[in-house]
Amino acid sequence: MKKIAIQGEAGSFHDIAAHEYFSGQAVELVCCATFEEVFDSMRHDPTTIGMLAIENTIAGSLLHNYELLRQADVVIVGEHKLHIEHSICCLPQDGWESIHEVHSHPVALQQCRHFLMGHPGLKAVEAEDTAGSAEYIARHKKTGWAAICSAYAADIYGLKVLQRDIHDNKHNFTRFLVVANALEADMLFPASQATKASLVFSLPHEEGSLSKILTILSFYGINLTKIQSLPIIGHEWEYLFYVDVTFESTTRYRQSIDAITPLVRNIKILGEYAEC
Amino acid sequence: MKKIAIQGEAGSFHDIAAHEYFSGQAVELVCCATFEEVFDSMRHDPTTIGMLAIENTIAGSLLHNYELLRQADVVIVGEHKLHIEHSICCLPQDGWESIHEVHSHPVALQQCRHFLMGHPGLKAVEAEDTAGSAEYIARHKKTGWAAICSAYAADIYGLKVLQRDIHDNKHNFTRFLVVANALEADMLFPASQATKASLVFSLPHEEGSLSKILTILSFYGINLTKIQSLPIIGHEWEYLFYVDVTFESTTRYRQSIDAITPLVRNIKILGEYAEC
Repeated sequence: MKKIAIQGEAGSFHDIAAHEYFSGQAVELVCCATFEEVFDSMRHDPTTIGMLAIENTIAGSLLHNYELLRQADVVIVGEHKLHIEHSICCLPQDGWESIHEVHSHPVALQQCRHFLMGHPGLKAVEAEDTAGSAEYIARHKKTGWAAICSAYAADIYGLKVLQRDIHDNKHNFTRFLVVANALEADMLFPASQATKASLVFSLPHEEGSLSKILTILSFYGINLTKIQSLPIIGHEWEYLFYVDVTFESTTRYRQSIDAITPLVRNIKILGEYAEC
Repeated sequence: MKKIAIQGEAGSFHDIAAHEYFSGQAVELVCCATFEEVFDSMRHDPTTIGMLAIENTIAGSLLHNYELLRQADVVIVGEHKLHIEHSICCLPQDGWESIHEVHSHPVALQQCRHFLMGHPGLKAVEAEDTAGSAEYIARHKKTGWAAICSAYAADIYGLKVLQRDIHDNKHNFTRFLVVANALEADMLFPASQATKASLVFSLPHEEGSLSKILTILSFYGINLTKIQSLPIIGHEWEYLFYVDVTFESTTRYRQSIDAITPLVRNIKILGEYAEC
């Protein structure tokens, strides 16, 4: 039995991602209100694995999760990409004529903007969570209310799906990271089989300092799949760099890290895992 | 008289940034509900200048504004960095004993998390806007409600400042961009005096393609101050790169752009302006 801490409720996209990633294995969810709580529950029980969204093709990166990852004593052991499909759901006795409010997470409401503009009679109300909105409607028997959530959440909470795929952009993917306590990590995924790594480092304010790092990585045959500079809190307009790299040879990858380390500050390997 | 379109109300941080940037000049605000409306009002009146937040030292980049900038026929003509200072404000007859709800923009509430945790009797309620919350409380004489906003907004709407500087992190800065219609831009800021530029381009998925671009920029003495890779909507896990550069010689800068153009796709100069 794998204990997986997620942010959100049963039926959330984190839940779906966890079950897809650990497909065929027994999973016990630890539902947390916040991402901080996900890290807390991993600290309290070192065998707990965390699943956290890190970027969405439309909404961009979850910067706060990068910061939590950098500060915690956990490592990334895997990644999972999930196609986000939003549905509008209500109590079984309700229908298009009777619903007048639609509740969901602000990002989900935003991703269904065209659908909502086409239904001006529906008042959009921001809530904590997509699946949480479904759960609330079911538990409190909220006639006239609808939730935007996954069809899976509707199924769990006994709601009726009024319409599937109501999101504006069909290319809506979220990338999740699977994280584990440092001591447990190698049992979950042997670093020697890694094809991808996530790094964070800061750089002195010198002309060309980033280009040197990227040039060294390319000399070693290391491919960059993502780069993000983030302001360092307390040092305005100085930046941390979050970098994802992929590689064919773990030896070349390790050599490249050795080669860039003297030229960067505070480098941390957030994890070595298999590209999905 | 300069017509400045901002997102938000009078008293918002956009208002403060606009007045600081155009200090000593007569400014007429065009208050818009959304950033899309800011771009719309510039389209309808080509002399209107836009002021838009682009990044915050704590919350990160406003990705959606990057996308609006890339698609619009406007150019960046300047930047302004503003120290964000939050205050808690209420009706003059209210005080610590009588307030029970505090309204503000979700980001402002988040930036005052420690303050709010220290006041568990105050229910935090998300609203559209910081200054808008102050305006609402003043207009509807909402006894028992407080707003988190600038002291300047409290002053405009006749509210009392209960406590200043309630934000957790004192290093809270927002960078704003000043944008103008392409035809008006050179009158506002002659590109020949630029010391900074913002670019966006995409890159083919080839190993080392970004390192080549950054190496060329460094050979020309161009300094990178920010880089952000963003997923291209509709092309999962392909990325656009938003890059800010600074330089001493506009000639060398232009030569460097000529040098990288054949190696990138869809390059667009978002603006050439003075670093602040």
